[in-house]
Amino acid sequence: MRKRKQNKDKLRIIPLGGLDGIGMNMTAFEYNDSIIVVDCGLAFPEDDMPGVDFVIPDITYLKENAEKIRGFVITHGHEDHIGAVPYVFKDIKTTLYTTKLTMVLIEKKLEEHGMMKTVKRRVIKYGQSVTLGAFRVEFIKTNHSIQDAAALAIYTPEGIIVHTGDFKVDYTPVYGDAIDLQRFAELGKKGVLALMCDSTNAARPGFTMSEKTVGVVFDHIFAEHKRHRLIISTFASNVDRVQQIINTAVKYKRKVCLEGRSMLNVIGAAVELGYIDDHMNTIISLDELGNYPPEKVVLICTGSQGEEMAALSRMAANVHKKVKIMPGDAVVFSSHPIPGNEKAVSNVINELSEIGAEVIFEDAHVSGHACQEDIKLMYALIQPQYAIPVHGERRHLQAQAKLAESIGIPSRNVILMHNGDVLELSEKRAAIVDKVQSGNIYVDGLGVGDVGQVVLRDRQKLAEDGIVIVVMTLDGYSHQLIAGPDIVSRGFVYVKESESLIEEANRVAAAAVMRCLDRHITDWSKIKSQVRDELTEFIWKRTQRSPMILPIIMEA
Amino acid sequence: MRKRKQNKDKLRIIPLGGLDGIGMNMTAFEYNDSIIVVDCGLAFPEDDMPGVDFVIPDITYLKENAEKIRGFVITHGHEDHIGAVPYVFKDIKTTLYTTKLTMVLIEKKLEEHGMMKTVKRRVIKYGQSVTLGAFRVEFIKTNHSIQDAAALAIYTPEGIIVHTGDFKVDYTPVYGDAIDLQRFAELGKKGVLALMCDSTNAARPGFTMSEKTVGVVFDHIFAEHKRHRLIISTFASNVDRVQQIINTAVKYKRKVCLEGRSMLNVIGAAVELGYIDDHMNTIISLDELGNYPPEKVVLICTGSQGEEMAALSRMAANVHKKVKIMPGDAVVFSSHPIPGNEKAVSNVINELSEIGAEVIFEDAHVSGHACQEDIKLMYALIQPQYAIPVHGERRHLQAQAKLAESIGIPSRNVILMHNGDVLELSEKRAAIVDKVQSGNIYVDGLGVGDVGQVVLRDRQKLAEDGIVIVVMTLDGYSHQLIAGPDIVSRGFVYVKESESLIEEANRVAAAAVMRCLDRHITDWSKIKSQVRDELTEFIWKRTQRSPMILPIIMEA
Repeated sequence: MRKRKQNKDKLRIIPLGGLDGIGMNMTAFEYNDSIIVVDCGLAFPEDDMPGVDFVIPDITYLKENAEKIRGFVITHGHEDHIGAVPYVFKDIKTTLYTTKLTMVLIEKKLEEHGMMKTVKRRVIKYGQSVTLGAFRVEFIKTNHSIQDAAALAIYTPEGIIVHTGDFKVDYTPVYGDAIDLQRFAELGKKGVLALMCDSTNAARPGFTMSEKTVGVVFDHIFAEHKRHRLIISTFASNVDRVQQIINTAVKYKRKVCLEGRSMLNVIGAAVELGYIDDHMNTIISLDELGNYPPEKVVLICTGSQGEEMAALSRMAANVHKKVKIMPGDAVVFSSHPIPGNEKAVSNVINELSEIGAEVIFEDAHVSGHACQEDIKLMYALIQPQYAIPVHGERRHLQAQAKLAESIGIPSRNVILMHNGDVLELSEKRAAIVDKVQSGNIYVDGLGVGDVGQVVLRDRQKLAEDGIVIVVMTLDGYSHQLIAGPDIVSRGFVYVKESESLIEEANRVAAAAVMRCLDRHITDWSKIKSQVRDELTEFIWKRTQRSPMILPIIMEA
Repeated sequence: MRKRKQNKDKLRIIPLGGLDGIGMNMTAFEYNDSIIVVDCGLAFPEDDMPGVDFVIPDITYLKENAEKIRGFVITHGHEDHIGAVPYVFKDIKTTLYTTKLTMVLIEKKLEEHGMMKTVKRRVIKYGQSVTLGAFRVEFIKTNHSIQDAAALAIYTPEGIIVHTGDFKVDYTPVYGDAIDLQRFAELGKKGVLALMCDSTNAARPGFTMSEKTVGVVFDHIFAEHKRHRLIISTFASNVDRVQQIINTAVKYKRKVCLEGRSMLNVIGAAVELGYIDDHMNTIISLDELGNYPPEKVVLICTGSQGEEMAALSRMAANVHKKVKIMPGDAVVFSSHPIPGNEKAVSNVINELSEIGAEVIFEDAHVSGHACQEDIKLMYALIQPQYAIPVHGERRHLQAQAKLAESIGIPSRNVILMHNGDVLELSEKRAAIVDKVQSGNIYVDGLGVGDVGQVVLRDRQKLAEDGIVIVVMTLDGYSHQLIAGPDIVSRGFVYVKESESLIEEANRVAAAAVMRCLDRHITDWSKIKSQVRDELTEFIWKRTQRSPMILPIIMEA
């Protein structure tokens, strides 16, 4: 109980995700016997995580302190903020608080996992507050590339903390109000202990353009392609983007057809909630597409990141069941490739070019994140005592730290954290006092956490040079070889053309085994390691490759 | 011999690489019993080629027509134009023609492969021509991101073909002359049959800036970092870039230290040839670095693409033997990430940020390839009858096709080709008349071509979900099971935590085998496929993963 005492009457901020990379956002705030958690996101796998579907944060700390948790507060409905909900809420029983569209998107996940009845939920409006133990959390209107994004003012016994969530400053949003700058200013006047601000675009100079500017680009594209079918690919969750395409389609007398599972999902929800205005009944189903000439329709589809199974990728590869790209079609990427997806996007563009479609890649997108001047505006309004950059790789956090210092926050009050760090914060003092367990939990198929570093390293090794398996059967009593050694390889060489190499390898393995048996070595692990060592050396010399060598001894 | 007759007195252009992707440039020109080949490059592996070191073109067609080959003509010394030389010249005995620096870089490769004596070589100067059978080839000065780049005027019996190689238009190059625009104009006046023009930047609007503009940026960076050590990472082959850093270092009274194997290699060669001017003895060795205070040195190093083993990556990961990055160091990326390398570069930047180095990423680079307006200039000077875009992915070739049409080449005279296509070309007619064998040959370690599609598919599958091996021993006479089945997996699940899954899988496999044996099935391939099918289904149901299932039966 000593620890409990040390922590008494201390505000502790513990990021469990979101700081050492893009995605997997989750931060715990703790005060005595109250913990609240902001966001519950997943991350998409990196190149060194083959076969992994996605990554969720390690929540050991939350499980160990489950009785303290007063609620999860979610800032908006993107996967990197809500994607881990079904996994985390299997272990944590508490209530979810968030805005309307965000809740609908979370509920779609809960339905899939059969968890609608087990997770308590409450929809919160902008301006409204909820009291959660020692904390009170107020939801503040922001703009982002999805509707119903909120910043949070977290009232703690040590002072107010403003967490921006993901945000941009859009004075002319497509739907709803602009970001509530007045409220940020009001909080700033009251005095804010710390600002935890989105760092995604902190390395980008200037201001982020309004979503409406994309509408102007759409207008140009429609005007210039009056005799062509238009296919526009964008993020399913960008409801305002889809609205602008619908608006432009109405103006140019085209029908709109949505395609791609998540597109139908999200936009369906948005229409139901009234976040999409289709009073002209412009949206038609895919089956009605054939009733209109090509130049009278716009297809809005998923696949703007080159995802292999998404609608646009299937169209480009000519394997889409209902839509065939034709020469003369104009395909618009209303998106930027997320880092890591450049090649996949490029491949789709090449396929489209090959068919003879015109590909429009530039200008039909704006970012959903604040750039440097917007971030400075936020600091200028809030004037926090401490700056705690969040949401980004180290370089993004670093870039925001520089911005904070440039507008007058003393560098000792700019706090760069890692996931798992425990920050104790008060007006008098900010210090990283502890480290809790944190990290990546890999989700692969139905498995959560059964793929770890060992398995991933094996997968990488297998991918690099394949596997060479040496099987043999030994008599359990006489320790004599009664079958093998046989060699089987996969992903190493094209065996038909390398027969002699495999035969020689077989001889090397057999000689190694016989040498062991002649010396009466009966410890099978020794025999295995002898075979592994000799084969590794032989194969390296002959091929300069290092396949995984896997000796298997069976006992008869 | 019928074919020979059909081809009589026809000019045939056969790209064997360089058209369906960036890299691996190689084009054959054929007329009766003369073949010449332009460039001999490699390509770097794509994501779907795990373990592959690099890719070279399939030269089956050249091997089949070896007696016709009159020579290889190389445009410049980048890997995508010279990298396949040691491999191709093992099969083809002919002479290499190229410029001075290009030849030195090729010779470094030949030395490594012990081929200096077996490959005939001749250095050619700008303005000079060589006659090769039915062809005459003239080398024309261009600018590029490496010295001694040449375009080629290929005089054929059907007319002149201009092949630009990789080029940019630089009116103020750092070393040597600007591109010989007058000569291109003169050829244009004479009449050019076809222009084969670099498409790399054909989708980029505007002009490519002069290399000298980067010098101005360096000057600013040096002026603003007078109290910091500077570390500048760039392409080893960009001799002019290195020269500009040396010039700036002299001005700001710093010493220059080169690091990275290829940097020392190429710049060493350039100094010897007099292409680098170090009359102030500014270059010091890495061992002398300690004799100077940090703010008096600049390190120029490899690793601007985030390559794992390159100098900068090792420094950032704190595993470089001699250089340790310090807080306050300024690290400049004088490069843009090549598509596909964005993540790797990003990781290095994060590591540098973590240490506290300042990372300067913008503006310290210009492209080595012509943008749209430069390409139009080339067309305006040459006014070819036909346009044959080369060097690029389909979308780049398509973009150049659009440019060519925009300045008046009729679309029927714009020829988009694939690798392996045989183009018959004359003033009267352009037609793709045939297709020869072409494609990717994978180089992995010492193996050339022993890794093919089957092996790569296996590697991808292994990477995705690992491998589950089922081994068993059957008695050769009685067909009874005498050992196993045992299950061994790698890259599938963390076995210790999934013991029960593996045990169940074992039971499934054993049941499948016993069922076969009970039915007196002695065809082992049938037993194997039964085991594979049942295990695949069981594992998918339980995990929603599809590891490779590999049953191995041994005979005792």
